[in-house]
Amino acid sequence: MQQKTTSRLSKLIKSKKAKVGIVGMGYVGSALAEAVKSGGFSILGFDIDSEKVAKINSLGKKNFQATENIKRLEECDVIAICVPTPVDEYNRPNFSILTKAASGIAANLKKGQLVILESSVAPQTTRNLLYPILASGSQLKGSDFFLAFSPERVDPGNGKFNVTNTPKVVSGIDEASLKLATLFYSSFVEKVYPVSSLEAAEMTKVLENVFRLVNISLINEINQFTKSIGIDIWEVIGAASTKPFGFLAHYPGPGAGGDCIPVLPYHLLDAAAKTKVNLKVVEAAAAVNEAQPQKVAQKAVEVINGKFVKNGHNPNVLLVGVSYKEETADIRQSPALKIWKELEKSGMNVSYHDPYVQNINGYTSKKLTSKTVREHDLIIITTAHKKIPYRTLVRSKKPLIDTKNTLSKYRQPHIIRL
Amino acid sequence: MQQKTTSRLSKLIKSKKAKVGIVGMGYVGSALAEAVKSGGFSILGFDIDSEKVAKINSLGKKNFQATENIKRLEECDVIAICVPTPVDEYNRPNFSILTKAASGIAANLKKGQLVILESSVAPQTTRNLLYPILASGSQLKGSDFFLAFSPERVDPGNGKFNVTNTPKVVSGIDEASLKLATLFYSSFVEKVYPVSSLEAAEMTKVLENVFRLVNISLINEINQFTKSIGIDIWEVIGAASTKPFGFLAHYPGPGAGGDCIPVLPYHLLDAAAKTKVNLKVVEAAAAVNEAQPQKVAQKAVEVINGKFVKNGHNPNVLLVGVSYKEETADIRQSPALKIWKELEKSGMNVSYHDPYVQNINGYTSKKLTSKTVREHDLIIITTAHKKIPYRTLVRSKKPLIDTKNTLSKYRQPHIIRL
Repeated sequence: MQQKTTSRLSKLIKSKKAKVGIVGMGYVGSALAEAVKSGGFSILGFDIDSEKVAKINSLGKKNFQATENIKRLEECDVIAICVPTPVDEYNRPNFSILTKAASGIAANLKKGQLVILESSVAPQTTRNLLYPILASGSQLKGSDFFLAFSPERVDPGNGKFNVTNTPKVVSGIDEASLKLATLFYSSFVEKVYPVSSLEAAEMTKVLENVFRLVNISLINEINQFTKSIGIDIWEVIGAASTKPFGFLAHYPGPGAGGDCIPVLPYHLLDAAAKTKVNLKVVEAAAAVNEAQPQKVAQKAVEVINGKFVKNGHNPNVLLVGVSYKEETADIRQSPALKIWKELEKSGMNVSYHDPYVQNINGYTSKKLTSKTVREHDLIIITTAHKKIPYRTLVRSKKPLIDTKNTLSKYRQPHIIRL
Repeated sequence: MQQKTTSRLSKLIKSKKAKVGIVGMGYVGSALAEAVKSGGFSILGFDIDSEKVAKINSLGKKNFQATENIKRLEECDVIAICVPTPVDEYNRPNFSILTKAASGIAANLKKGQLVILESSVAPQTTRNLLYPILASGSQLKGSDFFLAFSPERVDPGNGKFNVTNTPKVVSGIDEASLKLATLFYSSFVEKVYPVSSLEAAEMTKVLENVFRLVNISLINEINQFTKSIGIDIWEVIGAASTKPFGFLAHYPGPGAGGDCIPVLPYHLLDAAAKTKVNLKVVEAAAAVNEAQPQKVAQKAVEVINGKFVKNGHNPNVLLVGVSYKEETADIRQSPALKIWKELEKSGMNVSYHDPYVQNINGYTSKKLTSKTVREHDLIIITTAHKKIPYRTLVRSKKPLIDTKNTLSKYRQPHIIRL
């Protein structure tokens, strides 16, 4: 029975007649859609955000449409889940978006469909959380649908690597699922890397993200030391980068943001706590990252106290760049917003400029003119988008905290590095 | 005055007539000597170990001789210090070897000589420890000799990178020293990378080593978690390594050894404590690394308890590989020796095999025959030298803890991974 169903979907994938449903049209779903389209498949995107849906449909493409109606999953042969898996305010994994999407899929699951989870999760989540929802919520037995896990590796703003040319790690709950998922991704990704279990693939993504968090936190804490004795950490990183083996450069900044690097380590810590394994290095790195925005705010207070409090007005601070990463509009877990909160606690008036983020929390991005700069007592570069008119900032001679060393070529006393 | 002396040494270096003294003929000094020789210079090696000196002189090379007599430094134009900078039993930096070498150099220092420190040290050590000894111990003013720091990057057993083709970071206490040191290294190293201060160069080496320790400890602790839920960490590392950006593979093992990776982080922690900077990630990594040999020993106790204690004899354990690194004889800070100690505490009889280490603590390396294997209850591969006859180990069916995943191709129940 299962054999027969496999061959039906195989044929549909090979002939590009398989219709691909993508649940969650955020940056992961959108990047996947681009790649799937390039493979010659038709796509139906699902999202609860009617604006996103309308925007996709306004493109008027026959092979790429979107809907809010989860029932239309029945039209699909392959279903990729690309929803966020954030943590709550206590840094515990919050699976509510995933379980809601899973329930919707389960209610509409059809025999022979392949469901692939792309969202980042700790090991055992696909098997112990997603699979039971799909199996019990639907009227199907486990062998009547296929389940795979293939972690997204989308790096927003990366001009070199996209879904197509980044190797794709693929796993399945059984051999048939692995085979179909491998076949599917092989139609539009240059290199597919199958692994032996769902858990190996889940852990791969976790390891990649934990590696990043730990090394970013390491360099941020080392920067505290080098700063204390007057060493330029950026020069040191440049020198260490000449080592042709055993080193990979990471850079100081206001802290790692986004919905992956600072989030997945908490998924891991949660899973490790359940098996009573103590992850000291990961915990230390997470703590350093949590504290980093505060360190930037402290620096702001130092600068302000030295110059402006005597003037008797609440200092005005301009945050330049509020998304968590350069060349994106994504503000999830953005350190800039955490710095913002800290600055307000210290009695500062905060405004911001970001070419990618027009509105946030009732505020609107300020135009970055000489006049805007003059109206502020301190500028903090939190995200170094290319589009920002840095010369306007430098010319103003206003105190400026450059968390990203963007202005390294300007050696001026009003430019303060982290 | 200084200008004149610079040009004299410049000429000597350019014409390859400069004689190079290397103080400390361990693996760093020896590797440097090889490179310096290839540059066409004559070398005089200094060591307190008469065997090392005799061995070098027995080669009968005119351009490479050695001596125990520190007074012969007066023959040299360039003096490179390559002595160890270990930590004591409380993990505090122990500079006694360096200060002794420095005093010897100071007593014989001549106008116009260039002294280069290659030993790994935390920032400010060259300026605040070495320089005062040289300046006050000699009759020279600071400007009458040249002082540089250029950290060694020797990777013992690395078949691809040696002193000549590994970029060399160089710094000087003043412009003249930097210029001369850059000129000197440029005569035999493909790429020399000058930095702006002694401290930047010192910190470069520290950062390289701390990066390694942190990432080795990270993967060792993650291995504890993946093990607890049955994931193969080696498969995960292989999969993560397919990511073409932002990842660098590190592997689990019995802990990082040698006189650099586990040592330099303590030099850093000591320096950071003085400026009251808390390095949480580095501390956590150091703690994980300290505990790693114990984890291997615990695993040995588990294996032994399951099988042998009932037999009523003290279990015999064979450690395979005792040097800290593959293809070397260096046992400094070797995790194998720490495991050895732990095993003895648990009442086990320990013997060892290592093709590079003939004798240790009154023990002699056992020949690795089937008979030797039969005489032991447990085998632990601690260092995976290529020369080890692994088939003999595998054929025996004896319980074997493979800390390096060397026997990954043999999937047999008696082979236990860390």
